[in-house]
Amino acid sequence: MASVLIREAKEGDCGNILRLIRELAEYEKLLDQVKISEEALRADGFGENPFYHCLVAEILPAPGEPQGQGIGSKIIKKVAEVALDKGCSQFRLSVLDWNKRAMDLYKALGAQDLTEAEGWHSFRFEGEAMRELAGK
Amino acid sequence: MASVLIREAKEGDCGNILRLIRELAEYEKLLDQVKISEEALRADGFGENPFYHCLVAEILPAPGEPQGQGIGSKIIKKVAEVALDKGCSQFRLSVLDWNKRAMDLYKALGAQDLTEAEGWHSFRFEGEAMRELAGK
Repeated sequence: MASVLIREAKEGDCGNILRLIRELAEYEKLLDQVKISEEALRADGFGENPFYHCLVAEILPAPGEPQGQGIGSKIIKKVAEVALDKGCSQFRLSVLDWNKRAMDLYKALGAQDLTEAEGWHSFRFEGEAMRELAGK
Repeated sequence: MASVLIREAKEGDCGNILRLIRELAEYEKLLDQVKISEEALRADGFGENPFYHCLVAEILPAPGEPQGQGIGSKIIKKVAEVALDKGCSQFRLSVLDWNKRAMDLYKALGAQDLTEAEGWHSFRFEGEAMRELAGK
């Protein structure tokens, strides 16, 4: 069984975090949407009043075993633990409708698909639209 | 034309904020999902490292004019301004698929429906599922 340590991210992890963001975006066929730099990741996550918090899984795969098995569940369990500790009553994940494997995992772990169940859509304002709205 | 002042919320606004959360949830037919108390709103938004930031619109309706006209656009414009000032590259809104009026407004203001365009679904973990995941 692979050995997994889940811990809070440190500023020095930002290079690897950006690499993983890019790998996920590539899988999602949305790599062109990744515009953040390592410097921005450092500034946003490790200053005062950080914009995000991040957990990192350190994995030592067992010889002959496919890498990564069960890591998703372990991270989600840790997120649930941190969220309860901080007084959150829920947490949410966004997933693409063709990513059956992720959707099945989230459902198996007890999540509800709010888009399917209640009809929630996610709207994004960015770039030119934001600047126009702000008159900048 | 109604006179509108948009400002940052103060702790003393929490009673009215909760009332508006309930009115929106009632419109969304999701009032049973509103479990937060005024005390929790105060604690979450006005302590150190607040969980949320909130803008409030103070409205003085002009006599004979239907109340609320244009307030949504004004608040979204202010959100865009605050977001750019804070260094955000985007912001998102969640909306129910039958709420045509809201969806049309967001699109008219330049937002993209990510659920429609790319297939994003929102998954929620809460309550018993969270506690089970966390082993609590």
